[in-house]
Amino acid sequence: MNKIILLNRRPEGKPTLDDFKFAEEEIPALSEGNVLLKTLYVSVDPYLRGRMADAKSYVPPFELGKPVQSAVVAEVLESNRDSFSKGDFVTGLLDWKEYQVVEGKGLNKVDAHAADLSAYLGILGMTGLTAYFGLTEIGRPKEGETLVVSGAAGAVGSVVGQIGKIFGCKVIGIAGSDEKIEQLQSKFKFDAGINYKTTKDMTKAVADAAPDGVDIYFDNVGGEVSDAVLANINNLGRVPVCGAISSYNDTEVSLGPRLQPIIVKNSVLMQGFIVSNYGAKFPEGIKQLTKWLQEGKLTYTETVVNGFDQIPQAFIDLFDGKNNGKMVVKV
Amino acid sequence: MNKIILLNRRPEGKPTLDDFKFAEEEIPALSEGNVLLKTLYVSVDPYLRGRMADAKSYVPPFELGKPVQSAVVAEVLESNRDSFSKGDFVTGLLDWKEYQVVEGKGLNKVDAHAADLSAYLGILGMTGLTAYFGLTEIGRPKEGETLVVSGAAGAVGSVVGQIGKIFGCKVIGIAGSDEKIEQLQSKFKFDAGINYKTTKDMTKAVADAAPDGVDIYFDNVGGEVSDAVLANINNLGRVPVCGAISSYNDTEVSLGPRLQPIIVKNSVLMQGFIVSNYGAKFPEGIKQLTKWLQEGKLTYTETVVNGFDQIPQAFIDLFDGKNNGKMVVKV
Repeated sequence: MNKIILLNRRPEGKPTLDDFKFAEEEIPALSEGNVLLKTLYVSVDPYLRGRMADAKSYVPPFELGKPVQSAVVAEVLESNRDSFSKGDFVTGLLDWKEYQVVEGKGLNKVDAHAADLSAYLGILGMTGLTAYFGLTEIGRPKEGETLVVSGAAGAVGSVVGQIGKIFGCKVIGIAGSDEKIEQLQSKFKFDAGINYKTTKDMTKAVADAAPDGVDIYFDNVGGEVSDAVLANINNLGRVPVCGAISSYNDTEVSLGPRLQPIIVKNSVLMQGFIVSNYGAKFPEGIKQLTKWLQEGKLTYTETVVNGFDQIPQAFIDLFDGKNNGKMVVKV
Repeated sequence: MNKIILLNRRPEGKPTLDDFKFAEEEIPALSEGNVLLKTLYVSVDPYLRGRMADAKSYVPPFELGKPVQSAVVAEVLESNRDSFSKGDFVTGLLDWKEYQVVEGKGLNKVDAHAADLSAYLGILGMTGLTAYFGLTEIGRPKEGETLVVSGAAGAVGSVVGQIGKIFGCKVIGIAGSDEKIEQLQSKFKFDAGINYKTTKDMTKAVADAAPDGVDIYFDNVGGEVSDAVLANINNLGRVPVCGAISSYNDTEVSLGPRLQPIIVKNSVLMQGFIVSNYGAKFPEGIKQLTKWLQEGKLTYTETVVNGFDQIPQAFIDLFDGKNNGKMVVKV
């Protein structure tokens, strides 16, 4: 039988296991013009929380009683399409199913020799591209500038900081445990790190770490952490707004200091984005990231959870910061 | 004797007359290489409030006991510089004095035949250029888009809306009296207007006026008005943040709904700016504005207060919205 995971109800606040439902169906038979895929790795990402809500957003919401979808690495078991052969590895936005039959549309072949397969869900996938385009297109780093990254130990944040170093920035990471801070500095070569969970005065901590002020703030979290960084933003500062994980589970609108006075006073640019805004440039981004990875200028951490049944829990754990780098589930 | 106005103390909250001090001095004698100016029109602007505070900002604060400065139109009474002659009219950032002797640096000659002299403090001066560059460089209006302008009856806002119409946008203005709203539609040809002082549910009012959502929000005010507009912002919306007059007199940081979730969800661009960021393009902007003015595509309203002694009160009245268009004092 083929295990599948459906959206059982729309989460209120933090998602729980009851929001998901496990089911079984027959393993589908290959049909004309299609390919049969076996799921190998499943990506769990904070943005999926948005698609679980029934709200206007940049992508339509998941339907209740239907499979959840995310980025997946799969193996082609059988193919009725010329463009794919048995044994190919592919990535695509696919259902949370062990096996599925799909058209080839939207599937991309990946090279199992150039990198580990799970990397195509992370540093060579959406998270790496998110870091790359957010920082280069919006942040526009210049040598000698100060870059602050929140959610710095996450899949996107750790890549942002490393790219900042490649551009010659001073890089300060904000994360939620001393282990993560230690890793930012030892593994990812950040210049400094701040543990927001143990720091009382975050505004002062950022000011101390960034005595010349903050030129670029790559914002993955929103909330009070961002208030503290923005209080230190320099004139003509740039703020790629990539995520607001601190608010995703809010059931009421959360309040914070109004940003307009800071934005006006310092001619600050804030630009929200999703990676698909830069879709036309993906090949350029993947090429650059692969080159840096091969040159040893980029490294990555991933949290690999084992077992198809663990997908919902792995997703929930994102909101408690239990991942270290990209969180993927090995099926 | 020469009347002058000094900054007596730094305003707390809304400025009061006691924050200013009138004084007299000898009318200065012309010195080598300088020009003697007689003040004709003085510009009062909300941004001066920022310079009266002793806070880090894009321009240094005014000094206590020293004259306040703003944009001024003056007549050259005597000149020891080849570039200026007796009888020339000039604009520049000058002291609040009836007469003053200055180097020529930063003075620009203006043509009294091409427009009324006071226009060089407004539609052909900083306020017109602020509207022009904020809308064209950040807002990037496209035909058929919906533009919302707050502070719409103000010196900048009324020009923003008219330029929006030139670009083919649907233009909605937000202002604080029914008279202003009527004028936006009759004189400045806005498509719709919302009186924020008499409207209970601003979010709904904006949604009703902008059924296709808001593509560009030219923000002059910040605060709750902006919350309501941003709740209606479209994907890839652009928000030139020109001013936050609702917060300038705050003595405590004011709270509002956090913006990051909206910014991320809709890939919104917010860009704070001051007009001097576009200094290199001023000649282009003045040329375009003058052309539109001569073609009758732009018109303007100004509130002219008479008497040098009225400068502080005119400045204070800005914060009660007593101006209709650009506020200037005729000396």
